[in-house]
Amino acid sequence: MPCAFHIQTTAGPGRRGQLVTPHGTIETPVFMPVGTLATVKGIPQDLLEEIGPEIILSNTYHLYLRPGVDTVRKLGGLHGFMSWPRAVLTDSGGFQVFSLSELRKVKEEGVTFRSHLDGSSHFFSPESSMEAQIGLGADVIMAFDECTEHPADARRTRESMELTLRWTARSKKYFEDHKHDVPWKGLVQKDAQSDGAATQSLFGIVQGGMDLALRRESAERTIEIGFPGYAIGGLSVGEPRHLTREVVEATLQHLPADKPRYLMGVGTRAARHGLLFTSEGRISIKQARYAQDEAPLDPKCPCRVCQRYSRAYLRHLYAANEVLAQVLNTIHNLSFYLDTMRTVRQSISLGDVPRSPLAARQ
Amino acid sequence: MPCAFHIQTTAGPGRRGQLVTPHGTIETPVFMPVGTLATVKGIPQDLLEEIGPEIILSNTYHLYLRPGVDTVRKLGGLHGFMSWPRAVLTDSGGFQVFSLSELRKVKEEGVTFRSHLDGSSHFFSPESSMEAQIGLGADVIMAFDECTEHPADARRTRESMELTLRWTARSKKYFEDHKHDVPWKGLVQKDAQSDGAATQSLFGIVQGGMDLALRRESAERTIEIGFPGYAIGGLSVGEPRHLTREVVEATLQHLPADKPRYLMGVGTRAARHGLLFTSEGRISIKQARYAQDEAPLDPKCPCRVCQRYSRAYLRHLYAANEVLAQVLNTIHNLSFYLDTMRTVRQSISLGDVPRSPLAARQ
Repeated sequence: MPCAFHIQTTAGPGRRGQLVTPHGTIETPVFMPVGTLATVKGIPQDLLEEIGPEIILSNTYHLYLRPGVDTVRKLGGLHGFMSWPRAVLTDSGGFQVFSLSELRKVKEEGVTFRSHLDGSSHFFSPESSMEAQIGLGADVIMAFDECTEHPADARRTRESMELTLRWTARSKKYFEDHKHDVPWKGLVQKDAQSDGAATQSLFGIVQGGMDLALRRESAERTIEIGFPGYAIGGLSVGEPRHLTREVVEATLQHLPADKPRYLMGVGTRAARHGLLFTSEGRISIKQARYAQDEAPLDPKCPCRVCQRYSRAYLRHLYAANEVLAQVLNTIHNLSFYLDTMRTVRQSISLGDVPRSPLAARQ
Repeated sequence: MPCAFHIQTTAGPGRRGQLVTPHGTIETPVFMPVGTLATVKGIPQDLLEEIGPEIILSNTYHLYLRPGVDTVRKLGGLHGFMSWPRAVLTDSGGFQVFSLSELRKVKEEGVTFRSHLDGSSHFFSPESSMEAQIGLGADVIMAFDECTEHPADARRTRESMELTLRWTARSKKYFEDHKHDVPWKGLVQKDAQSDGAATQSLFGIVQGGMDLALRRESAERTIEIGFPGYAIGGLSVGEPRHLTREVVEATLQHLPADKPRYLMGVGTRAARHGLLFTSEGRISIKQARYAQDEAPLDPKCPCRVCQRYSRAYLRHLYAANEVLAQVLNTIHNLSFYLDTMRTVRQSISLGDVPRSPLAARQ
């Protein structure tokens, strides 16, 4: 049984809901911190639990290369391997092959590519991506798709979308045949939610480039194949920001009203570059003006960084390239994002229409 | 009033004591984690408090260059700047100038050197080192010395020792004239220990190279100048390990029985290189044999790393060069060192003679 999704309130395009997974219930809309290599960079899991995300995102491509799916499976899947009791989502590896690997060759059967680490040759197909994602054991896994490059002409965009649709059907078939091979199968039964999912859930991905008609067709035909949730893929590939919004808004209309939605690829690496979010706007902590600033980063933020350290100290850590800079900056930004999403959820509950679908990813 | 030192028990050369500083009482023998740039690399201060060190060590040379003494002073000294309520010790900068900087020129007045960061020219003297260390506001600060290189002939070793003795006297004079300029002066009065220090304490440093007679002379003449504590400097400069022990043992005999002793420069960067200490011996976590090892790093260790993560996960983090590897490895090794010192203190209390003075640094 896949994840259940309950909608409590809607306000315009905003939906306040709950996604019930084998590893806990997720309040939506939700922001997922990225834990590419089974770690949210620099943050121990007990601190991460305190910061509060109910779900994190890991990358199949990276984990397949290091430490390998077999290792993660033997250690109980991602939850056991990284000692993370809450929900996890993995991507299919398709986007990472598209963006990171070299000498990529796409054929009907799948993609041959070279590792960005050592140049070794590998092959991903819908079936091998499902096999990997079942071994990694995330609660939500993604169909194997081709991320269409930008710009792409009409013919190329359609061909790419058609390929993704065929791969999507193959992903679903393999998943249905093998979903009981998940490494935590036994564990979950005793912890399962009352109405809850006891298996992984596979989500489909809508492609179609920047062509709104193809986006609609891709959505309709992906829904026809049938999934418990749908993602909007193929964005943040170099297109201007207004186009991202336009494609998202147009695509959302064609997705089922009662299923979870996942907007892929709109994350940020701000913390690593010293860009910190506060209730008073963004702060670039590297600036000399903060060198002797005794104030906390954000006086209104309850996170452990703002409760303890000055801007002067954070500026020093960043300027000196100290490991603790990344740790503290990430703690703060994650806290800020999660607080922001809490506010968005409250607003929807109160009937406020979110300004943009980008502020209400679900 | 400088720090007080109370000895509870002795067992051979081992002494079980308490050092009372303006920022808390330190049980000795003690291991001091290194926080070079006002951070124990990768560890947030609240985690560090949990791990438990009662004193940490910061480096004047590094802090002088970044963020500058003036900034640290304005933020309340190291305690305020890094938000660390417990004791801190700073070195004098002499050893770092000796080991890190280029184009060093030693004269009677002091040392001209170039920054290892940007090649800019700087000057350290006993007076400027004291001024910097008073501004940084550590509880224990160190006299400005010349670390004699190894090997060095008899004449050079004596000249270097004599220079250190003159610099030591100048250090004391400047400190006595300026010790009330410490940035936390006002703060401490209300928190002061009942019998406790309300000012910084300046320790003298014994030099003399590997020459045991000069070590004795250096000790006696440093004691004559008079300090509340004494350090053994000039070791770990490339000499064989047995020689380090020999010099330490010989020098200890000439230090006052009732004053704290500080063995400088015998720290380790093991965690950063994946070398982890356990109750069953050292583990090099990078080894492939740990790739699928489900066991905790040290089954007997109560630290949060051993309580939560497998060797397989730690090996993965290290192999993938993840920031969390350094964070978790440091948490474990620090916990292990502090536990070891706890055991040493208990042994001394029970009358067991420590095997080597190197196991009982105080």
